[in-house]
Amino acid sequence: MSHTVQSLADQLKTHLKDYQVSMNETILEHHSKDESYHEWSEPDIVVFPETTEDVSHIVQTAHATDTPITPFGLGTSLEGHAIPYEKGITIDFSSMNKVIEVRENDFLVKVQPGVTRSQLEKELKKHGLFFSVDPGADATLGGMAATNASGTTSVKYGVMSDQVQGLEVVMADGEVIRTGNLAKKSVSGYDLTSLMVGSEGTLGCITELTLRVYGIPEHIMAGRASFPTLDHAVNAVVSILQAGVPIARVELVDEESIRQVNRFSETNYQENVTLFLEFHGNEPGLKADVAFTKEIVADYFCQDIQFEKDNAARVKLWDARHNLAYAFIHDNPGRKLMVTDVCVPITELAGAIKHAREKIEALNLVSGILGHVGDGNYHALLMINPNDPDEVKRAEQFNEEIVHYALACGGTCTGEHGVGRGKMKYQEQEHGNALPVMKAIKSALDSKGIMNPHKLVHRER
Amino acid sequence: MSHTVQSLADQLKTHLKDYQVSMNETILEHHSKDESYHEWSEPDIVVFPETTEDVSHIVQTAHATDTPITPFGLGTSLEGHAIPYEKGITIDFSSMNKVIEVRENDFLVKVQPGVTRSQLEKELKKHGLFFSVDPGADATLGGMAATNASGTTSVKYGVMSDQVQGLEVVMADGEVIRTGNLAKKSVSGYDLTSLMVGSEGTLGCITELTLRVYGIPEHIMAGRASFPTLDHAVNAVVSILQAGVPIARVELVDEESIRQVNRFSETNYQENVTLFLEFHGNEPGLKADVAFTKEIVADYFCQDIQFEKDNAARVKLWDARHNLAYAFIHDNPGRKLMVTDVCVPITELAGAIKHAREKIEALNLVSGILGHVGDGNYHALLMINPNDPDEVKRAEQFNEEIVHYALACGGTCTGEHGVGRGKMKYQEQEHGNALPVMKAIKSALDSKGIMNPHKLVHRER
Repeated sequence: MSHTVQSLADQLKTHLKDYQVSMNETILEHHSKDESYHEWSEPDIVVFPETTEDVSHIVQTAHATDTPITPFGLGTSLEGHAIPYEKGITIDFSSMNKVIEVRENDFLVKVQPGVTRSQLEKELKKHGLFFSVDPGADATLGGMAATNASGTTSVKYGVMSDQVQGLEVVMADGEVIRTGNLAKKSVSGYDLTSLMVGSEGTLGCITELTLRVYGIPEHIMAGRASFPTLDHAVNAVVSILQAGVPIARVELVDEESIRQVNRFSETNYQENVTLFLEFHGNEPGLKADVAFTKEIVADYFCQDIQFEKDNAARVKLWDARHNLAYAFIHDNPGRKLMVTDVCVPITELAGAIKHAREKIEALNLVSGILGHVGDGNYHALLMINPNDPDEVKRAEQFNEEIVHYALACGGTCTGEHGVGRGKMKYQEQEHGNALPVMKAIKSALDSKGIMNPHKLVHRER
Repeated sequence: MSHTVQSLADQLKTHLKDYQVSMNETILEHHSKDESYHEWSEPDIVVFPETTEDVSHIVQTAHATDTPITPFGLGTSLEGHAIPYEKGITIDFSSMNKVIEVRENDFLVKVQPGVTRSQLEKELKKHGLFFSVDPGADATLGGMAATNASGTTSVKYGVMSDQVQGLEVVMADGEVIRTGNLAKKSVSGYDLTSLMVGSEGTLGCITELTLRVYGIPEHIMAGRASFPTLDHAVNAVVSILQAGVPIARVELVDEESIRQVNRFSETNYQENVTLFLEFHGNEPGLKADVAFTKEIVADYFCQDIQFEKDNAARVKLWDARHNLAYAFIHDNPGRKLMVTDVCVPITELAGAIKHAREKIEALNLVSGILGHVGDGNYHALLMINPNDPDEVKRAEQFNEEIVHYALACGGTCTGEHGVGRGKMKYQEQEHGNALPVMKAIKSALDSKGIMNPHKLVHRER
C-alpha cells in the first residue's frame, strides 16, 4: 500500500469512523467490477458514508487531493459505470438505505440512494402505491437515477427521469445542492434534475431522491401472445400503439429466449416468438382494451393469446422475464454476458431486429433477442467465451454494426444501459457538435475531472 | 439611429436579405413588450430568419460584436421573457413556421420554432393525432419549448419538456447542435434537451423541434362540477387523483372567474366554484371513470355535475376556460393583467388558495383564481391600474407573499409561466446553492452573456 493511499485514508478518517473506510482486499475486489464483460479495476479505498455530510467530506477530501471518485450502488450496471479505472475512492452507498418519507397523498417518496427497488416496493405496498421503473436487476435507486434506468413499464409510465422530481447532490467540490421541489410542475431555473439523472456520476454524487409513485392500478391483466415470426410480433405492437391502446407493458421474447425461460423458470410457455403483455386500469376499460388487442393481433397471425388467471401466474410471468439474463448466464457456464442495447424509432424496429438476427447468424454467435418493443428498444443477450479472442472480437463487431444501424435510422447507441465505459466510443458519432457542449458542462461543474473519470464524458486531468 | 446600429445592420445584411432586417419603428415597438405588466424596452434591430443558417449567421454576428440577442416567438409570455432590456437584436421566428415532417407511426412531428399550436393542431388532425400542451395563448412551439409551457392537459400528458424529444439549437457562438434523436428512449450523453427546454433563450436559439404527439382519444367526456367552497373543490380533486382515476383535465374556476366566463363567452354556467373536467379513453372505461368521479365529488357536497352532450359544447367549455384571461382584460379596460403562478404540493393546495384568497381581500385587489389543480398550480388574475402606484405595490406585495408561502411548503415560485424578468428575484431563495451551478452552466455555454440577458440567470458582461 502506497504512502499516499494511507495518508488519504487517514484524511478520510478525520471525519469518518474506522469501519467506514476500507482497504480490505475482498472489499476492493468486490468494487472492481459490475455485471458486464468490461475489464476489472480495483479502487484504492472503499468508503461507506452514512450521511450527506459524510459524502461531502469524502468529496472535499478527494477534491483537495485530486483523487478520482467512483460512486457505487450495487454494481449491477452493464457498461462498466462503477469500475474505477483510475483507482482512487469508490463511494459505496449501501449504508445510506433509508426510505425517508412517504408523502402518500402527494404521490411522492423521499429515499436515500442506497435503497433498492425491491426494498422500496415493499415499503410502498403498505400505502397502496408502487414505483414504476423495473430494470432487470434489483438495483439501488441512486444507481437507477444516475444511469436513467428504465424497464418493462416505461411504455406507459416513462423512464427514471420521468420519476425523479428532485435530488440532493454533492457536487465535485463537496458543495451540497438541492434540485427540484415537491410541486408537480416547476419552470424555475435550469432543469438540473434532468441534467443529473443519467450523468452516471460524472457531475456529482446523488445523496437523496424525491421520486414520483403511483397508486396500484385497480385492475391488472397480463398475458402472452405468440407469433409465427419476429416481424409479425413487432408489427402487431406498432398497430396496438397506433390504435391508442394504453398498454402498460409489452415485451418481446424470441424463440431462443422463450426456451431459456422454460428451462430456468420451469414454465411451459409455447416456444415461439412471444409478446408478454400487461394492461392497467378499471375493469370495463381493460376488458375493452384486451378485446381490441385480440382483434389487432389476429391480423398478424397471432397463434395463441393467453391471459393469466391469477396474480401468482402474473407474477411468475414477469419474474420469468426479469430473470432472463440470469437464465442465459446459468445455462452457459464459463461464458460472459454481453448485452447490446440500441433503441430505434418504432417504425424502424422490425428492420433493426431482422438485421441483428442476420448478423448473429452470420457471425456465428449465441444470443437471444428480447426487447421493450413499445419503446423501440431491444437487447441481444450474447453469451461469449472470454478466453476466445476471436469470439470476443465477433461480438464486439456485432455490437458495433447494430449501433451504426441504429444511428443511421435516427436511433441511439443506448436505450437504457447507458454510456459508461462501453459506449464512449460512439458519443462523437451520435452527438457531433453537441459533444463539446457536454464537455463544457463537465468542465464547468467538475474542473478537476475527478468525478467517475473515463465514463460518459471524460475530462483530461 | 447610431452609427453602430447601422453598421450592425449592414453586417447582418451580408447574409440576410434587406427585408429580413428591420429598424422600422412600428416593428421595434411591437417587439418591445409581451402580454405582461413588465416595463417595455425596444430592440435596436429586429431580424426575421428563414433558415437555421440565417440564425447561425445572426448569432455569429452578435457574438463577434458583443450584441445582446432576444429570441421572440409571438410575444405571449407573462414574465417579460421576450423584452430586450439591453436592446440589441431581437430574432423574430415567425418566418420559420413550417411543419417539416409528420412521422405518424412514430408519434413524432418535426416543426420549425415559429409554428403556432393552432397551426400544428390543424396539421395533426389530418393524421388523427393531437399535440397535448395547450397554454392559454396560441403561442409558438419554439416559445413554448423555451419556456417549458404547460396547460390544462398536463395532469395526464405532462408538460412541454415531456413532449420535446429533440432539438436543433444555435448556441451562443453560432454553432448548430442537435440534441436527442427519434428513438423513444435514450440514455446517451447528458440530457441537453431538458436543459434547453425552459432555459428561456439564455443558452441558445431553438431552430427545430421534434415533438411527441398522441392519437386522438377514442372517446372524450367533458363536464362541470360545482361546489359550495374552494376547499371542497380542491379536496375533491385530491381524492380523484388518489383514487387513481386517470383524469385528462381538471381545472378550477372560482366564482369571480365563472361570472367572467358567462359574460365573455355567453355561457350560463352556474356561478359557483367549479371544476372543469375531461376524461380520455375507451367508452366503457370512461363510463366507469365518470361513475367513480361522481361518487367521489358527492362526498365533497358537489352541488351539480353536468357532462356536455356533444363535441360543440365540449369545445365551447374549453374555449371559455382558455379565454378567461382575455375575459378579465376585456372587462377591465385601462387595467393591466398581472397573473401569479405558484405551484405547491397537491396536499398544500387548499391551504395555499385559501391564503391567497384572504390576501386578495386584505389587500383590496380585484382578482379571479383559477388553476390546474391536478398539478397544484393556480393563478390569481389580478387586474391592476398601472397608473395607481399604490395598487401596483399591493399587487406586487401579494405576488411576493404567495411566492413565499409556496416556497415555504415545498413548492416553486413558478409552475408554468417561467422566470423571465419577473421571478429572477426569487431564484436565490428557491435554489440556494444550486443557483451558482446554474450560473456556471450559463457562463460555460454563453461566455459573453449575450443570450437574452437579464432573464432567468444573468451573466454580467
